[in-house]
Amino acid sequence: MLPPALKWEDGALYLLDQRALPLETKYRICRDYEETAAAIEDMTVRGAPAIGVAAAYGLALAEREGEFAEAAKRLAATRPTAVNLFWAIKRMEETRAAHENEKNLTVLLEREAAKIHEEDVEINKSIGRYGAALLPDECAAITHCNAGALATAGYGTALGVFRAAAEAGKKLKIYADETRPRLQGASLTAYELMADGLDVTVITDSMAAFLMSRTKIDAVITGADRVAANGDAANKIGTYGLAIAAKHHGVPFYIAAPLSTFDADCPSGAEIPIEERAADEVRKIGGKYITPPDVKVWNPAFDVTPSELIAGIITERGVIRAPYKENIEKIFPGGNA
Amino acid sequence: MLPPALKWEDGALYLLDQRALPLETKYRICRDYEETAAAIEDMTVRGAPAIGVAAAYGLALAEREGEFAEAAKRLAATRPTAVNLFWAIKRMEETRAAHENEKNLTVLLEREAAKIHEEDVEINKSIGRYGAALLPDECAAITHCNAGALATAGYGTALGVFRAAAEAGKKLKIYADETRPRLQGASLTAYELMADGLDVTVITDSMAAFLMSRTKIDAVITGADRVAANGDAANKIGTYGLAIAAKHHGVPFYIAAPLSTFDADCPSGAEIPIEERAADEVRKIGGKYITPPDVKVWNPAFDVTPSELIAGIITERGVIRAPYKENIEKIFPGGNA
Repeated sequence: MLPPALKWEDGALYLLDQRALPLETKYRICRDYEETAAAIEDMTVRGAPAIGVAAAYGLALAEREGEFAEAAKRLAATRPTAVNLFWAIKRMEETRAAHENEKNLTVLLEREAAKIHEEDVEINKSIGRYGAALLPDECAAITHCNAGALATAGYGTALGVFRAAAEAGKKLKIYADETRPRLQGASLTAYELMADGLDVTVITDSMAAFLMSRTKIDAVITGADRVAANGDAANKIGTYGLAIAAKHHGVPFYIAAPLSTFDADCPSGAEIPIEERAADEVRKIGGKYITPPDVKVWNPAFDVTPSELIAGIITERGVIRAPYKENIEKIFPGGNA
Repeated sequence: MLPPALKWEDGALYLLDQRALPLETKYRICRDYEETAAAIEDMTVRGAPAIGVAAAYGLALAEREGEFAEAAKRLAATRPTAVNLFWAIKRMEETRAAHENEKNLTVLLEREAAKIHEEDVEINKSIGRYGAALLPDECAAITHCNAGALATAGYGTALGVFRAAAEAGKKLKIYADETRPRLQGASLTAYELMADGLDVTVITDSMAAFLMSRTKIDAVITGADRVAANGDAANKIGTYGLAIAAKHHGVPFYIAAPLSTFDADCPSGAEIPIEERAADEVRKIGGKYITPPDVKVWNPAFDVTPSELIAGIITERGVIRAPYKENIEKIFPGGNA
């Protein structure tokens, strides 16, 4: 069975160290907000919904230390692209503001983080049901990066759709892009789907287009780190090229993401900040250089897929389709606020 | 200075071991055709023109052993996609047939292999001149895999275009796709361009599309392993997705390849055999698993880019443009034969 990405035990946050998977299963214990922030930064925990939940627990830990405000700032500065992080921090801040004078504030904030955690699983199951309905009974699909149980509080967004489809008796063949540079598809998605007995085949990112030309692919489904008000979606680098290839082959490209991933205050993808990470993430694999050590590198962690390339965004409240601006506005009247 | 991919010294073929680059520079010595065939198979030497030259020398070695016919069969079975291999074998067979009764046949065949070797450099320089004329004076370009001096007898096809443009005083910024699974872009192209003082930046294959959306890219140029009679081109896996992304962004996608890469007897890309290589090529990097060790993998070494996506094929006799079938036929009336 797949171990959970996060768990709260004895007043501490346990994070499954995703950098060690699939070869090793070990947890990292965070007893304060700084440890939590460091674990988000170095990608011990990754995936937009999962880092939101981790940040919520980090704030519960900070309250105990009497450093809630500092922690909110520190956690918000860990990673710039995933909006679930800011959503979770905001929700914890609002909870705190509503109960500021209560004695058991620490307990209340722990409970709120646990609630965000539990809700995330329910939200993913709902996304899964809406998404599964889009897939044929025999289905070949491609996914990118890891939008699975390991990227969320459990069950997963894109992989939640596959789980729900399998539970509904559909026969799936899933292709997992390996997802350079950090190889989350090769390591996490392959591991997670095999652990649950799903049929998974790993390909390099560069094989997806050729696969679509040689095999009937019914859908491409990925997660998202931020969805703008016009439906443009930031997700792991490589998603955009995959969406272009899907369009070229007439394959529907879906985003599976909870409403906490939407940033209604962000008008379009052009305004989404894109994290650039260290050059050595590309230059080295397994600690060893694969390039000349001093070669120049460009290493954006995410890219932006414009909504024209997206057939639908699968959320816990149903599938949002074009026209995205109008349909997203219906859900978030007047922005996120 | 860049060491040569192949050299003939003291009656033996010296192959630069490209699997050890960029960290180590060492030569493997082939004293018979079997060693040559093994080196082609295990990718000590790679790149369509280079394996053609290596096979020619392999046949010169075989003549000395009195095993020319066996060697021709063995060498033809090493790799199925690159047609230059079959072209070089055929040329050596024809040379042998024309001089069958001469005493110094061994010397004649050695000379013919050396001639193929020398001609290849001249051909590449001509490709370079025609290609350079297509590029603006300030040019940003993307290339995939290694179609350089290391993939040929020297100078290179796609990288030969960049060399010629730089020699003509143009200012180039070159992005090299790392080219999974074997990382020829990250290792060989980066190494080769840096050795010659060209401005190179490595990206993962999955970043090329996003790069085109954020930066003005003037051209995408790759080599080819086989060009069919209708202009469809087989090249390193990932080329097809890159060509689709180029089309989507209005960036011209060029193939740079000598006429020995054309297979006028092959009507279209559908008939080009695509080599599938071992699963562990994807599963392992640097000897270490990056996936669950038993996960399924699909690993085609090449893909096919249909001619509709190709803005021009740069050859030693000029740039071939659409309509490809008609224009290729003019060069090869009645097929290759």
